[in-house]
Amino acid sequence: MARTQGSHSDITGPRIRAAALKLFAQHGYAAVSMRQIASEVGVQAGALYNYTPDKQSLLFSLMEGHMTELLQAWQDLRDPDQTVSAGSAEDHVLARLEAFTRFHIRFHLERPDAVFIAYMELRNLSEDNFTAIESLRREYENALETILKDGVRLGVFHIPDTKIATLAVIAMLNGVMTWYRSGGRLSLDEVEAIYWDMVQKSVRA
Amino acid sequence: MARTQGSHSDITGPRIRAAALKLFAQHGYAAVSMRQIASEVGVQAGALYNYTPDKQSLLFSLMEGHMTELLQAWQDLRDPDQTVSAGSAEDHVLARLEAFTRFHIRFHLERPDAVFIAYMELRNLSEDNFTAIESLRREYENALETILKDGVRLGVFHIPDTKIATLAVIAMLNGVMTWYRSGGRLSLDEVEAIYWDMVQKSVRA
Repeated sequence: MARTQGSHSDITGPRIRAAALKLFAQHGYAAVSMRQIASEVGVQAGALYNYTPDKQSLLFSLMEGHMTELLQAWQDLRDPDQTVSAGSAEDHVLARLEAFTRFHIRFHLERPDAVFIAYMELRNLSEDNFTAIESLRREYENALETILKDGVRLGVFHIPDTKIATLAVIAMLNGVMTWYRSGGRLSLDEVEAIYWDMVQKSVRA
Repeated sequence: MARTQGSHSDITGPRIRAAALKLFAQHGYAAVSMRQIASEVGVQAGALYNYTPDKQSLLFSLMEGHMTELLQAWQDLRDPDQTVSAGSAEDHVLARLEAFTRFHIRFHLERPDAVFIAYMELRNLSEDNFTAIESLRREYENALETILKDGVRLGVFHIPDTKIATLAVIAMLNGVMTWYRSGGRLSLDEVEAIYWDMVQKSVRA
């Protein structure tokens, strides 16, 4: 029985997550019931509880999954890049900031629902869950702040407050999601180039 | 009777709006019932319908009120400013951008719930209401874009795309709301100065 139940969870898990993500993004966490999620998946409400103890755990799992995926994707991109250090230290810190800018835009544009929830449903996390998500978010922010601090040390950047600059750059980039539609007047490459121009100027010495 | 009902609406209107704003921001529009709003105000649900025909009208009225207040406040600030044109045209366009930057931060920090709803509940507006709010929002964005275009014409700014730059600057400034708490390590003046440094550099030639 345990094996059967395990297989069942493996199959429906991703479908439960996808359904919850969609419904939370559409209606907001507080307006969605476990019963609605089950109905969207096409299972009985009871089947959901094989997968997750409650709605709060489901929300936390979605937000935590989004953040760890983000951190892992940035880590994967950064690792090979760090071994290549052609050009000056100044060029290198600019290249790292450009890589971050383009990565952030692309990663987030591919996941509008997850991003929407990541920002909007913080208010609905329990205190412990909020602390855990905030800590992952800070880890991601630190990745950018490290680049900015390195640039300041090298004299490439002039930044009165690297913490605020970090949040300002991320907020600016997140704005892409409110207006960008693929197939619009600008390609993703063009959008990235425009934002990169603004980001690098905003922190330059 | 009509007069009594009128007075009654005059008194409870602002309380209904305040209660709806608070509850929508806390739980999300879809999760809040007219009954809950009435209970927050301390009136019967029926009394709400003297003031507003339904929850959708109430949401629209809150969002429209926020946008017209924003446009009016910017208009009021700009009017006296335009008569004073000391210094060069270049200085003047920079002064206008600085005024916009500081105005936007202050106006929005004073109204966190209204701002949260203005962005998050767009998904819950009917089509006509969405169109109306988008048009007001575009009017506000045009105010900033005009400044940016003037700066480009004068050679003070270099901006590959003024429409996107407008959205990028507004998104960057909106980010203040996610982290600023009065009484924190930075005064509002310091925060404004830091953002102004980044905003003007991001668009400079």
